[in-house]
Amino acid sequence: MSKQLKTEIIAVGTELLLGQIANTNAQWLSEQLSLYGINVYSHAVVGDNLMRVEEIFSQAHQRSDVIIVTGGLGPTEDDMTREAFQRISELDMEEHTPSMKKIEKFYEKQGTEMTPNNRRQARVFQGAQVLQNNAGMAPGMIVSHQNKSWIFLPGVPREMKQMTKDHVIPYLKKLTGEEMIIKSMVLRFIGIGESRLEHELSDIIQAQTNPTIAPLAQNNGVIIRLTAKERSKEKANLLLQRIKEQILSRVGTYFYGIDEESIESKVFSLLKAQKKRIAAAESLTGGMFTEKLISIEGASQVCLGGIVCYDTNVKKNLLGVSSETIKSKGTVSEECAVEMAQNICKKLDAHIGISFTGVAGPEPVEGHDAGTVYIAICTEDGDQRVEKMSFQGGRNTIRKRATLKGFELIFEFLK
Amino acid sequence: MSKQLKTEIIAVGTELLLGQIANTNAQWLSEQLSLYGINVYSHAVVGDNLMRVEEIFSQAHQRSDVIIVTGGLGPTEDDMTREAFQRISELDMEEHTPSMKKIEKFYEKQGTEMTPNNRRQARVFQGAQVLQNNAGMAPGMIVSHQNKSWIFLPGVPREMKQMTKDHVIPYLKKLTGEEMIIKSMVLRFIGIGESRLEHELSDIIQAQTNPTIAPLAQNNGVIIRLTAKERSKEKANLLLQRIKEQILSRVGTYFYGIDEESIESKVFSLLKAQKKRIAAAESLTGGMFTEKLISIEGASQVCLGGIVCYDTNVKKNLLGVSSETIKSKGTVSEECAVEMAQNICKKLDAHIGISFTGVAGPEPVEGHDAGTVYIAICTEDGDQRVEKMSFQGGRNTIRKRATLKGFELIFEFLK
Repeated sequence: MSKQLKTEIIAVGTELLLGQIANTNAQWLSEQLSLYGINVYSHAVVGDNLMRVEEIFSQAHQRSDVIIVTGGLGPTEDDMTREAFQRISELDMEEHTPSMKKIEKFYEKQGTEMTPNNRRQARVFQGAQVLQNNAGMAPGMIVSHQNKSWIFLPGVPREMKQMTKDHVIPYLKKLTGEEMIIKSMVLRFIGIGESRLEHELSDIIQAQTNPTIAPLAQNNGVIIRLTAKERSKEKANLLLQRIKEQILSRVGTYFYGIDEESIESKVFSLLKAQKKRIAAAESLTGGMFTEKLISIEGASQVCLGGIVCYDTNVKKNLLGVSSETIKSKGTVSEECAVEMAQNICKKLDAHIGISFTGVAGPEPVEGHDAGTVYIAICTEDGDQRVEKMSFQGGRNTIRKRATLKGFELIFEFLK
Repeated sequence: MSKQLKTEIIAVGTELLLGQIANTNAQWLSEQLSLYGINVYSHAVVGDNLMRVEEIFSQAHQRSDVIIVTGGLGPTEDDMTREAFQRISELDMEEHTPSMKKIEKFYEKQGTEMTPNNRRQARVFQGAQVLQNNAGMAPGMIVSHQNKSWIFLPGVPREMKQMTKDHVIPYLKKLTGEEMIIKSMVLRFIGIGESRLEHELSDIIQAQTNPTIAPLAQNNGVIIRLTAKERSKEKANLLLQRIKEQILSRVGTYFYGIDEESIESKVFSLLKAQKKRIAAAESLTGGMFTEKLISIEGASQVCLGGIVCYDTNVKKNLLGVSSETIKSKGTVSEECAVEMAQNICKKLDAHIGISFTGVAGPEPVEGHDAGTVYIAICTEDGDQRVEKMSFQGGRNTIRKRATLKGFELIFEFLK
């Protein structure tokens, strides 16, 4: 039997009332809770003012069963979530030793002196379930008080999200006795637009209610979010698998991964499976391709590194692109891209070389408009391909799109 | 004479409580109001439920002078902002003829039949100032009731913004008799933590009310937001300048820029002013330093490029770090970092070389924990410095922190 709990979310922070940031924490929390059938009855935002925080806490304690508070747990005078709750609850506080040790250790390791106000962050209510902060200093807390559940989370989104996933959701599921299981799956595609994808799947999308099917264009391709609701994990997974297969039978050629899998991690897996090592020669992308690949754990198995040859002399002297090519064809050319990819492959003794050359903008280069980009892929066996693209957007949009396209081309090449 | 009005913003809409959208309306309104010196005391979000909307309206009427409500003015059964306010105010409603005509005309033009519920949108409170909607159907309203100002706006951001600019801001300026100008300035610091900064400035922060002084930790350092309120732009600027100088006399050594200036754009400006060109040898950062510098327009004047020497053989063969150094000291060492910086400087014929070598993690390397990073800076004149750091966090947090530290060190070196 599941129990319906009145839940509300309170954000503490004057920066929200000044409009410096939007309350995306409340949005994210609401989305997560709704997945587990927990209804949020209201959001509130209050500034860093003890009296007003206390007032809203009193009201919340009257009207709700579960109160989630974000923000106001930091080290400074402005942070008064703890003080306000102490006033309305009259609960005692104590220093949480593991959290204090963590803070001290941080300052010790940094070699800087800890200012006294940092001690505030380690203070917790007696009897609270202390929620470990893996990403920052201040721990969170779950406090049961007069039959109400108070959940205190940091305002920093990364810290708040980690604690919610690790501790708050399991706690609330136990509290509600929720038996329906919600399972989501994200299918990721590259090389196909949203409207084309929707067109190919229109009958499936229209017919389905469970799982729901939601396509969404993103910066790095298109995703489809599947959400199934069932009485068991197994049943939910079965539903997801069935619809996934149906979708992939239509558009599987553009599919590269599920859930959080990124195109760079997919490329990483393919390189690793094929025991191939890659090196990049990057001009306008400035190291972005290599940087993204190296962001993945274990990158040393597949990525040797590369040369960022932003300057023409670096292309010539270090990378060895011939002066003749640069003189006759220019640096923004198919020929230059191919030489760059060939040379980086040889110089770093890689299996595959990839190169990026083009115009990031805003000004044209060698008569080419901003957005003109050549990407070449060469292998140690002499295999080679090159693509010319015209990207839209500002300087860094062009650079990001070129990098993404590089991953797409390598993916197509390896799959 | 300006009058301080207690203002609150209430958003009506279940989609907000389901986390489908963030309450960006409240953010935008707060930002606009703060520019005119109007303090927002709270935000609230409530679902499409008559009883709950009525309840929060009652509370708001008790506690605030100005209540801005967004959403719930549409044609459907879900839209109950009008009904809830009628219940608490007992004001009569009437059909607003110009709005009704506009709605009828729209359907006529579309050639579709108007469903009866569309009439709801044209209903306004007797005596209300009706706010014309240039972008959609439902008009807004300003209602004076028992000395309180109720402002009703559509939830669609475009419509809400237009009415706010055209009608709400002029109305509120008249109401407050506000002639004050609000000016903000952000001071940016690097190399100092939030708590240390606050400690150094605690007396200034505590003494000040105008400008207000708000320190805030961010991913890329610490900022202080100054907000001054004055009768003229000149006076506000003077206040900001005065407090800026006072703050910089204490912690100016960590200051790098104002407002939107980033540390990489500051480094870019310094390099450009000093006519110096830089090259980077990056191991664990994988190209991130170079990539960030190249993200700036005009980067070719200050950045030549670099070598991403993630693999040890690339450090040796391409960058020329001696086998002896790598054998005796390892790649995670002061000596390796210095050779990397010296060699990249020479190889690319740069004025300054910077290098990054260390352990991104999660696994230790050569007996060093994840987070151990050496950064070296060498110049063509043989000047050199090297720093050892211990960063906390996951693989990519460590890589980002190392990159940021690199910019910090170059900044210190050049300033």
